[in-house]
Amino acid sequence: MRKSTTLLIIIFCSILINVSFAQDDPLRSWNNDSLKGSIIAFVKSVTTEGTSTFVPAEDRVATFDNDGTLWCEKPLIQGIFAMYRAKKMIGKNPALKQKQPFKAIASNDMTYIKSMSEQDLIKLVAVTHTGLTEEEYEKEVADFFANAKAPNGKSIEELVYKPQVELLQYLRANGFKTYICSGGTVDFMRAISTKYYGIPPEQVIGSTFVYVYKDSAGINDIYRTPKLNTFNDKQVKPVSIQYHIGKRPIFACGNEGGGGDIYMLRFSQGNKYPSYQLLINHDDKEREFYYQEKDNKSLNWAKKFGWNIVSMKGNWKTIFVAD
Amino acid sequence: MRKSTTLLIIIFCSILINVSFAQDDPLRSWNNDSLKGSIIAFVKSVTTEGTSTFVPAEDRVATFDNDGTLWCEKPLIQGIFAMYRAKKMIGKNPALKQKQPFKAIASNDMTYIKSMSEQDLIKLVAVTHTGLTEEEYEKEVADFFANAKAPNGKSIEELVYKPQVELLQYLRANGFKTYICSGGTVDFMRAISTKYYGIPPEQVIGSTFVYVYKDSAGINDIYRTPKLNTFNDKQVKPVSIQYHIGKRPIFACGNEGGGGDIYMLRFSQGNKYPSYQLLINHDDKEREFYYQEKDNKSLNWAKKFGWNIVSMKGNWKTIFVAD
Repeated sequence: MRKSTTLLIIIFCSILINVSFAQDDPLRSWNNDSLKGSIIAFVKSVTTEGTSTFVPAEDRVATFDNDGTLWCEKPLIQGIFAMYRAKKMIGKNPALKQKQPFKAIASNDMTYIKSMSEQDLIKLVAVTHTGLTEEEYEKEVADFFANAKAPNGKSIEELVYKPQVELLQYLRANGFKTYICSGGTVDFMRAISTKYYGIPPEQVIGSTFVYVYKDSAGINDIYRTPKLNTFNDKQVKPVSIQYHIGKRPIFACGNEGGGGDIYMLRFSQGNKYPSYQLLINHDDKEREFYYQEKDNKSLNWAKKFGWNIVSMKGNWKTIFVAD
Repeated sequence: MRKSTTLLIIIFCSILINVSFAQDDPLRSWNNDSLKGSIIAFVKSVTTEGTSTFVPAEDRVATFDNDGTLWCEKPLIQGIFAMYRAKKMIGKNPALKQKQPFKAIASNDMTYIKSMSEQDLIKLVAVTHTGLTEEEYEKEVADFFANAKAPNGKSIEELVYKPQVELLQYLRANGFKTYICSGGTVDFMRAISTKYYGIPPEQVIGSTFVYVYKDSAGINDIYRTPKLNTFNDKQVKPVSIQYHIGKRPIFACGNEGGGGDIYMLRFSQGNKYPSYQLLINHDDKEREFYYQEKDNKSLNWAKKFGWNIVSMKGNWKTIFVAD
């Protein structure tokens, strides 16, 4: 056989192998670098029977934050829903317009809206998410997700991070049970958790309002009151995980931005089994956003405790499902 | 062929068929009557594709109370654990004995113990179940279940109702996801839920204390404070189910005795899918206990709303796993 033929065969085979690798690659939207390698190595290590690092399937718990971790948090999607609901409420009761923040929402006064404090926003979420039955609320949320657009004209589903959908699938394919543990309110996320992430409603942990069960005057339903029951952020996340799952995650993923996930990652690190912590760094001005915490706490803790950091710019080949 | 031979063959075949039926019967400890038939008919109706009664697997949620429904509530097993813990606490700090109820527990003063009110009991549970980390607590619970005996000398596992273990298995074999939703505290039940009932910790809903996450001074754990967070009884059960699962059960099972399960059964009955409600009636003085509510509320509601009633005496062939 002539040398050129041999070379051609080798080239052809290597293309075939590469194509086959690319097709088999469960994390296609992740660049092939040491971070991706460390995720795969961890998953292999906890799923290889007979090794000291093996973790039984029932203890392969993975918890993910949602806003800024599975989908974008700029804009905050639950904020878009709150505006949507507020406009519908004004439609039914125009007198609402005389008071803030309804006045600003009715006139699209973005300067006012952007100036709202966290407390103002929580109040707005409360007033737009409660005062109705669970059934009525779920209908509102379903209508919103079916029709709503983000300010950039994309559908809400297109704002999901593609690499994370792959990561969730990859973990489940390796026997992990994947959960959302987010500051978003629980029944809002449940409306899309199966469709967007493959996570069933019962594996969603979020903030909650006080619910009251009413079985009178023909109502047999949960009534959503405006009182906050839990705000699932910071130190509350490990507590919610304990209430809901009763096990520490071996894989925990959050994002820098508000310091909301650092205790969940620490809690995971206290697992008796090997564990893996992943923190998303929003450092991609071109494709998404660049924002950092003033005190840099999440990234400082990541360094201090040896967590793995995703540079959205450096580690993700693709960002959005829409791309 | 002679008549007697034919008869012999028929008898032989019918024995074979009966043996095979008995072996295939998923509800062996239930008498073959209309109640058992109604359970089987319901399960068939919601699992037969292409019918109007079909329920998709992801919506086949079943919730069971625990005390008096899956295992006995006389004696209350969590009460036995509270005594066990109280005695251990006295061992470490004998001064406790000077105050009630420790004084009565130390001297086995059953008259005093039996006279304790529900509030007194909740206080005793709080003081014996909290003030330690989750990890320390789980060790205590594991030790208890490994060694404890009921007053009748049986192990705790032997106090589980055998027909209910079969029912849980039967539902799961038909694609149901089975949950506990009980007034017992959540992390107590989780210690045995997999072993006794095949229900994993994350499918256990119970009463909770306020937990605080501590990540300081070398502690990376949940600290259990004595403040009650939720008392998962009566109208709270539907609310806890909504928080935890986000779906109404299509199968709900509780017991008469304290009226604690009637709202869970009603909530299930408000399902958009066909649903089945089952109420255990403690009417078997010989094999277990006979006790009825003063106002008969649970049985009255069962009649009013068409729930199915288990007469332990009439419908259960066997009561305990130990039998």
